Amino acid sequence: MRKITVMTFNKSSRIAIVGSGAVGCYYGARLAQHGYGVHFLMRSDFEHVSTHGLVIKSHQGDFQLPKVQCYKAPEGIGSCDLVIIALKSTANDSLPDLLRPLLHENTAVLTLQNGLGNEAFLSGLIRKDQILGGLCFVCINRLSAGVIDHSAQGLITIGEYAGEPTARTHSIAAILNASQIPCKVEPSLGLARWRKLVWNIPFNGLSIAAGGLDTERILASPALSQLVKDLMHEVIHVANHLGYELPLSLADDMIANTRGMAAYKTSSLIDYMAGREVELDSIWLEPCRQARDAGKPMPKVEMLAQLIAACVGK
Amino acid sequence: MRKITVMTFNKSSRIAIVGSGAVGCYYGARLAQHGYGVHFLMRSDFEHVSTHGLVIKSHQGDFQLPKVQCYKAPEGIGSCDLVIIALKSTANDSLPDLLRPLLHENTAVLTLQNGLGNEAFLSGLIRKDQILGGLCFVCINRLSAGVIDHSAQGLITIGEYAGEPTARTHSIAAILNASQIPCKVEPSLGLARWRKLVWNIPFNGLSIAAGGLDTERILASPALSQLVKDLMHEVIHVANHLGYELPLSLADDMIANTRGMAAYKTSSLIDYMAGREVELDSIWLEPCRQARDAGKPMPKVEMLAQLIAACVGK
Repeated sequence: MRKITVMTFNKSSRIAIVGSGAVGCYYGARLAQHGYGVHFLMRSDFEHVSTHGLVIKSHQGDFQLPKVQCYKAPEGIGSCDLVIIALKSTANDSLPDLLRPLLHENTAVLTLQNGLGNEAFLSGLIRKDQILGGLCFVCINRLSAGVIDHSAQGLITIGEYAGEPTARTHSIAAILNASQIPCKVEPSLGLARWRKLVWNIPFNGLSIAAGGLDTERILASPALSQLVKDLMHEVIHVANHLGYELPLSLADDMIANTRGMAAYKTSSLIDYMAGREVELDSIWLEPCRQARDAGKPMPKVEMLAQLIAACVGK
Repeated sequence: MRKITVMTFNKSSRIAIVGSGAVGCYYGARLAQHGYGVHFLMRSDFEHVSTHGLVIKSHQGDFQLPKVQCYKAPEGIGSCDLVIIALKSTANDSLPDLLRPLLHENTAVLTLQNGLGNEAFLSGLIRKDQILGGLCFVCINRLSAGVIDHSAQGLITIGEYAGEPTARTHSIAAILNASQIPCKVEPSLGLARWRKLVWNIPFNGLSIAAGGLDTERILASPALSQLVKDLMHEVIHVANHLGYELPLSLADDMIANTRGMAAYKTSSLIDYMAGREVELDSIWLEPCRQARDAGKPMPKVEMLAQLIAACVGK
């Protein structure tokens, strides 16, 4: 593997946001608000945002960016030091063309996409040591063109795809933390991704497959609560088998925490109800594939994927 | 085990029907139509049927029984030679009281109930060698009090709970066949029950859990078609493990046959949509229990049971 120049990031770094939905706009706007050089690649909201900028309604205080550097095509942005991918993973086919103009030899590419397989997909396009993954723990919604509602949380955890955190990882965390985006560095990105799947697989899945239920209604059923736990246990067993240590008790802890939350509609349910594509592959199918490849199939998770597939007309 | 007197049945045999819904009324009416001494134990339709009798609208030709021997309590019937149980298995708690007045030492009790566990339940009340099980392959619906619609098929297959068929088994088959009820004797009741579960578990289950779908709509989804096959394979593997030989190819054969049928709403879906109790225990939970006890759990069938339980508010 080639040795990379360790990159540090500052206000003269060129940053691109690929996929300017709620996640991309919110995090990009926070960085821009704090003086970082953010370039938004946008499709549907381009006309509106290039004229009116971005409005962020946040429980931490609203703010506006009247002027935003936004682009319809990546060629207009040119090469960047950091590319943040906030595209739905269902649109990964378009990534090769979107990324190419944004890269220089040491561009760091941070994918905030859900589930598994997105870093592996990027590794077909760029060197492994350029790739980072991030997990978002945030409640955000696009209210209308250029208007984002940030209603709770905001944490991002990031890690290196190729190994342990480096100076670069900590430098990215530093500029996020300096922009009112709480950010923690993960020693193991794989562990972090599997830990998040322990929650997302059952709750995002059943929110669709059990008929459009929020977390409160899922947990109001003893049968579904047991199923949530069974699904979590399947995921934890596979994670452990792959070398990511998670205690079985995580299931009960997560269920208890979720009971303590307000009724919550998962992002997958919101996508599904809005008629948008559900991230079937990265949240359910790819974990099932990795489990089978490791000789530890997850039959209930597979069945959940089959039921979701049927819900979306497959 | 005590040696039983082999019983043969004829027009002077006393027959009771316990549970006079669509199944009990239809088969009882056929026997009565052909001169057998049938006594119907009835609850909700008692007033109507004792005044107006039974009307059977059948694709084989309609017929009426203006006078029907019907009863509100089993004491009025007294001991019988053959008791046919067509009660929903969800009402088994009432069976001890309903059966007691109907029994003499050699009463044969034939349960036409769905799924597994009904013969075992009866074995807590009467000797094993008194018990027979039957499987109904018939499309019947209660249209209104005393009016039954028989729209297709009609076959009953019967077998002995305690072992192989005897002269008694063949004698019961003979009086059914003599009453326009095609009846076949099963060498192994267990095998017959598991074979029927191979179809009922996925189709009755998904018809509820996947959101109120008939067989055609289930098989219109490639994902659900694959799930039907996976569920069937789980059931076949357990059946084989329990000593009931069924080929794996039965799954593809049943799916192909079902594709060839008209769109069909399963009896469980009809019960569910009418707000009646679904036979969760006998069709799904008891097979899962037997599978676990044999060390061969059926995870997808278990998950199906959990989803159905959630649908019925559990």
